[in-house]
Amino acid sequence: MRSLLLIAHGSRRETANREIRQLTAQLAERLGESFDHVGSCFLELAEPDIPTAIDDAVARGARSIVILPYFLATGRHVAEDIPAIVGEKQTQYPQVRFRTAAYPGASSEILDLLAALARSVPD
Amino acid sequence: MRSLLLIAHGSRRETANREIRQLTAQLAERLGESFDHVGSCFLELAEPDIPTAIDDAVARGARSIVILPYFLATGRHVAEDIPAIVGEKQTQYPQVRFRTAAYPGASSEILDLLAALARSVPD
Repeated sequence: MRSLLLIAHGSRRETANREIRQLTAQLAERLGESFDHVGSCFLELAEPDIPTAIDDAVARGARSIVILPYFLATGRHVAEDIPAIVGEKQTQYPQVRFRTAAYPGASSEILDLLAALARSVPD
Repeated sequence: MRSLLLIAHGSRRETANREIRQLTAQLAERLGESFDHVGSCFLELAEPDIPTAIDDAVARGARSIVILPYFLATGRHVAEDIPAIVGEKQTQYPQVRFRTAAYPGASSEILDLLAALARSVPD
């Protein structure tokens, strides 16, 4: 079983966390052929946290978990915090294959997206 | 004169801030026909901060400033902090037209981007 976990920062504003959950639901629809389960979790300020979401995926039978950091730059969260938490879970579940996808800010498409957003503001 | 300011969160890791500056340079190349000046600034932890970048744009002669929040969800930063800072500057510079573009997380293309990142991880 193959699981995808979108990891977002988490916010004190519940609206922001709800955005992430809605995006995850859309992503699950889109990726139904590639992943058996698509979930989201938060580094801080919202639930579930990353360890809980990984435990849940493993309890569902995940043998492969793809971590997708929903971040825009390689700050401490992407470079240190998330790898540390995932590394601990890899130790706890040696039978599960953990892999981490590139974060959106590392994608060349982000430039197209920003250019489109900037151009869409009328002069 | 028309100016575009990409506003990022800012990080303690200088690598992350450098990513933003490189992205801004690429964006400037891409948007040369639409904007006379493209700059970036940071909400916290890195320089320039938002007021300094706006002062700089106005000093360069900007009559129109488009704010592009480089964030993925409408957390406090997008919903409260950035509008408050920009609002103060709008009061200080009533002759300048400030507008705020949609943030990348609000774009429908972000879903395509995430799906592509997830699919790019081999099984």
